[in-house]
Amino acid sequence: MTLDRADVARKDPGWVRELVQRPDARLLAAGPGTVLADGAQPALARLAPARGRLPDPILLGLEQGAPLFAVDLDELSDPTAGGPAGDVAADAGVVDDAQRVISLREAGTTLPPAEAGLAAYVSALMNWHRRNRFCANCGAPTALTDAGYSRHCPNCGADHFPRTDPVVIMSVEHERRLLLGRRAGAPEGRVSVLAGFVAPGESAEEAVVREVLEESSIVARDPEYVTSQPWPFPASLMLGFHARSDAGDPISADGELAEVGFYELETVRAALRGDESTFKLPPSISIARYLIERWVARAGN
Amino acid sequence: MTLDRADVARKDPGWVRELVQRPDARLLAAGPGTVLADGAQPALARLAPARGRLPDPILLGLEQGAPLFAVDLDELSDPTAGGPAGDVAADAGVVDDAQRVISLREAGTTLPPAEAGLAAYVSALMNWHRRNRFCANCGAPTALTDAGYSRHCPNCGADHFPRTDPVVIMSVEHERRLLLGRRAGAPEGRVSVLAGFVAPGESAEEAVVREVLEESSIVARDPEYVTSQPWPFPASLMLGFHARSDAGDPISADGELAEVGFYELETVRAALRGDESTFKLPPSISIARYLIERWVARAGN
Repeated sequence: MTLDRADVARKDPGWVRELVQRPDARLLAAGPGTVLADGAQPALARLAPARGRLPDPILLGLEQGAPLFAVDLDELSDPTAGGPAGDVAADAGVVDDAQRVISLREAGTTLPPAEAGLAAYVSALMNWHRRNRFCANCGAPTALTDAGYSRHCPNCGADHFPRTDPVVIMSVEHERRLLLGRRAGAPEGRVSVLAGFVAPGESAEEAVVREVLEESSIVARDPEYVTSQPWPFPASLMLGFHARSDAGDPISADGELAEVGFYELETVRAALRGDESTFKLPPSISIARYLIERWVARAGN
Repeated sequence: MTLDRADVARKDPGWVRELVQRPDARLLAAGPGTVLADGAQPALARLAPARGRLPDPILLGLEQGAPLFAVDLDELSDPTAGGPAGDVAADAGVVDDAQRVISLREAGTTLPPAEAGLAAYVSALMNWHRRNRFCANCGAPTALTDAGYSRHCPNCGADHFPRTDPVVIMSVEHERRLLLGRRAGAPEGRVSVLAGFVAPGESAEEAVVREVLEESSIVARDPEYVTSQPWPFPASLMLGFHARSDAGDPISADGELAEVGFYELETVRAALRGDESTFKLPPSISIARYLIERWVARAGN
């Protein structure tokens, strides 16, 4: 992403009001797991907002110096609704044939990486605002602050910030076999590496060992960090690890997985090739897929 | 930590009610950044709860098979208050001379690692309950569920889970010098490595580069993960990285740091030795200290 988030300057409401008036200001729109894409090119739709008609501006940042704001798709969906939201919609001329609503997954596979990253960012932020209109501490309605980077409670004074949940996701190997599971409720044949939320008070490495034990009864050791990826469903930070196991008899322990087992290198390689006769692995945009491909590349040598 | 958190079994309220009745059930108490410690030995105080008198049991887990619950220190502080909380307190016989309230920082330096980890866990969990009595989605009061691992809103149906904020913290080096800063408001001479929250929609590696740029104007490259640590002030997951910089002229950019600069290896080494003539580094329990010590050990070779 090549966006300047203006973390400091955004605290000045006067500066933000000026940005709203700028002729080069643009708007991105997002809903729950969706974004508004340009119909003609692989990019997000950049709408021209009605000047001065953003009563609660959510500033994503500056894009090559031009202010980029966000709006909830719901506020665009009914231009006849009236009120500030309807005004924004009517003047922005949305949604017309030039744009279409796509899922974040589609954004991840069809848009260039920078645009896909922007889609994840705007969707996560809008989802947080949608689900946090009240103060968890006292129950009073909260107000948008810092141009959308926080919400303030005028009743108890609490400040609330967007939440990002750390999740560990890990390839676990035992004798050139890889631990994969199928989530309860997932379609037949759809498997992936194991994953779970980091619990309060534990390190990421402890979470790896605990989750693998809980979901498969396997004792993982030596978790090594691989890489991380934001995952906006709704707002997670995926922390990818690789670990080893000395035993090879997984049992679905906590009911989260319908099936769990160690899969032979050749079987996993065939699934990566898309061999229809085997099982299905996660899509190429996911860190899960990356961990699996990385393991195959290394185990194959 | 050698605690079985009973992630699955805890969803059964009948099982949890039975645990409350068990004669080997124990209670830990925590307040904001504090825990109740045993006065005689380096351990947390394990109180015997009044049997069946935990109306809203928060189950930490099973410790060698024995149920371990948590209670807010505030509910123990006035045994004469009456009501369920007062009952718990009166029967538990708290707080007497055998226990004392200590800070989490003291817990981190004086207790064995497993007890310090437990202190972080109970404090983070109790703090979350204290600050989340209402539904952020609709403002209604929420009820404790899953024996303390979630809260449910009976009004809109939303489920709420404890929040853990991912934070990146990084040693950044340039020509055998280390980037250190003093937070605005911190005492003179107290410096540390830079750190900041991961923002929605960015990877941990992107957060490292963005935070270093925002706080010091330095362009960091090649962030490498080192290790992680839970940090219960109030509930963060610290993700430790090491990165490099090609330029060596830091400027405090966003106002978060009062001073920032590159420090020579010998100066940092002297500060680690506790040399009074130099500046002060973070305490030994922190991942910040670990990153600094690790850099000195490697740069010194």
